[in-house]
Amino acid sequence: MSFDVSIISLFPEAFPGLLDVSILGRARAEGIWSLDVTDLRTFGLGKHRQVDEAPAGGGAGLVLRPDVAAAAIDSLERNDRPLIYLSPRGKRFDQAMAREFAAGPGLICFCGRFEGLDERVIEKRDMIEVSLGDFVLAGGEAAAQAVIESTVRLLPGVAGNKASLEDESFSNGLLEYPQYTLPRVWENEGTPEVLLSGDHGKIAEWRLNRSKLLTEARRVDLWAAYLNGQDLRASETDDEHD
Amino acid sequence: MSFDVSIISLFPEAFPGLLDVSILGRARAEGIWSLDVTDLRTFGLGKHRQVDEAPAGGGAGLVLRPDVAAAAIDSLERNDRPLIYLSPRGKRFDQAMAREFAAGPGLICFCGRFEGLDERVIEKRDMIEVSLGDFVLAGGEAAAQAVIESTVRLLPGVAGNKASLEDESFSNGLLEYPQYTLPRVWENEGTPEVLLSGDHGKIAEWRLNRSKLLTEARRVDLWAAYLNGQDLRASETDDEHD
Repeated sequence: MSFDVSIISLFPEAFPGLLDVSILGRARAEGIWSLDVTDLRTFGLGKHRQVDEAPAGGGAGLVLRPDVAAAAIDSLERNDRPLIYLSPRGKRFDQAMAREFAAGPGLICFCGRFEGLDERVIEKRDMIEVSLGDFVLAGGEAAAQAVIESTVRLLPGVAGNKASLEDESFSNGLLEYPQYTLPRVWENEGTPEVLLSGDHGKIAEWRLNRSKLLTEARRVDLWAAYLNGQDLRASETDDEHD
Repeated sequence: MSFDVSIISLFPEAFPGLLDVSILGRARAEGIWSLDVTDLRTFGLGKHRQVDEAPAGGGAGLVLRPDVAAAAIDSLERNDRPLIYLSPRGKRFDQAMAREFAAGPGLICFCGRFEGLDERVIEKRDMIEVSLGDFVLAGGEAAAQAVIESTVRLLPGVAGNKASLEDESFSNGLLEYPQYTLPRVWENEGTPEVLLSGDHGKIAEWRLNRSKLLTEARRVDLWAAYLNGQDLRASETDDEHD
């Protein structure tokens, strides 16, 4: 059974775009996931297929009409898929959310433009507001691409066993350690000795230490959560050794 | 003078993609910004144009070679543009960073794939690691699109005066209030009376309150920062009245 992704957008021509390259493109060709795009404009009103109106109460810009948005949404088979509205007001997208979405039947992504979407359709259609971060895009399309890419990448068969490995490395709560490859010396910079030692225990230790240093330096939030988790694990296993 | 954006990617065919629609497409046609894409593959080594190798010290996946990455980077005119490497290890992208980038001469975005990029080229070429969030993508392309879209949208003439307005609403540190538009009643849900009252003071007050409620409910981090800022402003203006 395929993981079915539907996108509602005023710019259907922007898809599949990035979602058609590399491992995602291959996985779609293999039927692991499917993508269909609905043009919001076709549900617009009147001769000009109008989708937006001035905000009630005044203010700059235009707001997407609830009736037009609902008509586009209702044209799709919902099939228990979460209906996501990409918006800086939403819950922050992260790897845990990607895993949750990947475990479900698919996704419907509604891409807004302008000043937003009428609040009533967000409530009446159980839209889940998801944010990529504290920045403003011209529309939800770029955010939808990132959410879909992160999610689909976790489906079985898309990235082989690489995905699960990377995923685990991310879910230890630390930033990734520095990577090195060939050539061994480049622009007078060598490769850390330990990585060439063949001593897997020492290599794992070095990598964990570098991950810790990097996380402590760059992300106080992750570092605090990591230390907290360490404490919890330590107290749970107080009487275990090695 | 145009704001010049360069992208280095293994998937040049994915661009301009989303960056060619709507206000960004128009602004590019008008010469407000430019986009060129460099195919990393053309700098690969040997008959197969190889760009990656196994990580030193072992582990899953492949790491982009520093010599190949540097050759692609060095083929571009830097022109004081920040060189961004999209990576979950980086500094979190936000609206303040978008504003900073938009005030500069342009951007160079390096899109990684695989398990990462050799650490030496990140250091030697002064790459700025920028993260879209705590999730894993198949490559940096989707993140680059979001960073470029947010940044270019802020350039004068791209979004008219809408951008600055939205920007200010974002930079008050609160999530945006709910929006309503036509029809006034939809699926038995009306529009909040106050928005139809014509009383601009009351409307502004209602919107601010809804922004506060939403931020408090959804984002403890922003809410704490907002309260903190309020305290600072209050103590700075202690002897001022209305």
